[in-house]
Amino acid sequence: MRMLINVPETVVADALRGFAAAHPELTVDVENRVVVRRDAPVAGKVALVSGGGSGHEPLHAGFVGPGMLSAACPGEVFTSPVPDQMVRAAAAVDSGAGVLFVVKNYTGDVLNFDMAAELAEDEGVQVARVLVDDDVAVSDSLYTAGRRGTGATLFVEKIAGAAAEEGAPLERVESIARRVNAASRSFGVALSACSTPAKGGPTFDLPPGELELGVGIHGEPGRERRPMMTSREIADVAVDVVLDDLRPSGPVLLLVNGMGGTPLLELYGFGAEVHRVLGERGVPVARTLVGSYVTSLDMAGASVTLCRADEELLRLWDAPVRTPALRWGW
Amino acid sequence: MRMLINVPETVVADALRGFAAAHPELTVDVENRVVVRRDAPVAGKVALVSGGGSGHEPLHAGFVGPGMLSAACPGEVFTSPVPDQMVRAAAAVDSGAGVLFVVKNYTGDVLNFDMAAELAEDEGVQVARVLVDDDVAVSDSLYTAGRRGTGATLFVEKIAGAAAEEGAPLERVESIARRVNAASRSFGVALSACSTPAKGGPTFDLPPGELELGVGIHGEPGRERRPMMTSREIADVAVDVVLDDLRPSGPVLLLVNGMGGTPLLELYGFGAEVHRVLGERGVPVARTLVGSYVTSLDMAGASVTLCRADEELLRLWDAPVRTPALRWGW
Repeated sequence: MRMLINVPETVVADALRGFAAAHPELTVDVENRVVVRRDAPVAGKVALVSGGGSGHEPLHAGFVGPGMLSAACPGEVFTSPVPDQMVRAAAAVDSGAGVLFVVKNYTGDVLNFDMAAELAEDEGVQVARVLVDDDVAVSDSLYTAGRRGTGATLFVEKIAGAAAEEGAPLERVESIARRVNAASRSFGVALSACSTPAKGGPTFDLPPGELELGVGIHGEPGRERRPMMTSREIADVAVDVVLDDLRPSGPVLLLVNGMGGTPLLELYGFGAEVHRVLGERGVPVARTLVGSYVTSLDMAGASVTLCRADEELLRLWDAPVRTPALRWGW
Repeated sequence: MRMLINVPETVVADALRGFAAAHPELTVDVENRVVVRRDAPVAGKVALVSGGGSGHEPLHAGFVGPGMLSAACPGEVFTSPVPDQMVRAAAAVDSGAGVLFVVKNYTGDVLNFDMAAELAEDEGVQVARVLVDDDVAVSDSLYTAGRRGTGATLFVEKIAGAAAEEGAPLERVESIARRVNAASRSFGVALSACSTPAKGGPTFDLPPGELELGVGIHGEPGRERRPMMTSREIADVAVDVVLDDLRPSGPVLLLVNGMGGTPLLELYGFGAEVHRVLGERGVPVARTLVGSYVTSLDMAGASVTLCRADEELLRLWDAPVRTPALRWGW
């Protein structure tokens, strides 16, 4: 137990109070657990709403702002938000141009966002949905049918968010979001388990000196447990698994993502190895982002996400964004 | 051992290679360990150079760019950079308007920056120096005579960097930097030890269920070891210790800083408690920054830094900055 918390029951509410205090530029409804861009609804603009279990910060609330999400709904730790949060968020941000739900592929999230879409549509909001399922490690897992949604969520939210900011209609924002997801693959590695406040200790057993290849962002089992490997060896495995599935023929966007407990010093070193492997495989890297963006509480480890990037996606990636966690060009 | 590294000997070099690959907007001399703003030297502009042991990322290399540092020199993990790095950095960024060295108060850093200042001056570079010593926990410690330099380094580098960007002369940039340091105090808490690559395990012994009040950013002992406390209780102690020493009569800048191993979810929750205490003490918070900026590898814990903020300091704080770790208004 090395948690900086009051009691497990108030962790999410406490964090939202702190988020509200730190980010007066956003509207934070602590009671109903909805974070909204302050100038929403923006006339004529398609809105993006996402959400999911807490414990993956800065995802998703840290990605709310001009050029990215219009609203985010945080659930309890590693637990889907409820449909009521999503309906409330949709109502707060819809300008009449419609709402895109960005949903990571976990059973609870999928069911709740589907229900929310029906409810919002009953209230006259036009809703489209994109499912993020980029994790190549396993095809079914503890929490999912099909692939899990992980690092590509950041690419989908940033790029589709930029398209919406430019005034693209709902159908087009949705198709760009789908295109980004289809063009993205991830693979993650855990060097330690994560500890949830409710459990007060590690959620799974990973003995010191072993690592989990292909781990999910809740510590779900991956493909294989192995004795500790070097950064170089891990990069070889992770990049090759992703490339085998993705088969890019041109430049890629690269996210070197920390799981939460891995220091930035190590993450940049791992990024160097990822760049090395991509170079050896002849894959040019158009843009690189290194940091802990899609996390699993205090889990040590990292994931690699690649996205096949054409000119349009790169232009939208480079477009201005102003959120707590991603900010440039503004 | 849950480190994402190759071998301890190459950790800093590996990270610099990854930093270079991720940040083509900066000039990274991996061999000589100097990170420089690409457009340096900027004609007529005072340059800011900082540096220190690695393991505190994003400090300092992540703060290089327009509006903040001109260059950074990373040393080995928790070890001062050498004077040669600092002289090289100064030569690379000096436009003739002079260079300000921002030095955290650790014996090795102070000696090496002093020597570098002499060497740079011999080469015709005008050098001023500001010492950062904001940590109220102890007056002398394992690595320092006097107070340790911790979170206020970020305030000094951002605010003095903004003054330099506006064209202030060296004497004025130096006096603003000194003013920010004199107006800032910090207090840190560790919930776990950090592990250095060289040691391969924890650098000090902190039994589960205990915490170290007043810890330094290398895991130096603090004031007191206590059984685990809640976020609320920790905020009460940390804020009051800082306020007792700082005695602000107006608004403050607030940094709620993660030590590296504490998830953002917990850090925001702690931020809520810090805001609560400040509210109870009648101290208005003008700006809040929450994140892991001045870290100690994978140490769990947090620190609170407050800076008495007048209108000029707030204006300089809000001024545009474009670095890997801090970016706004540009």
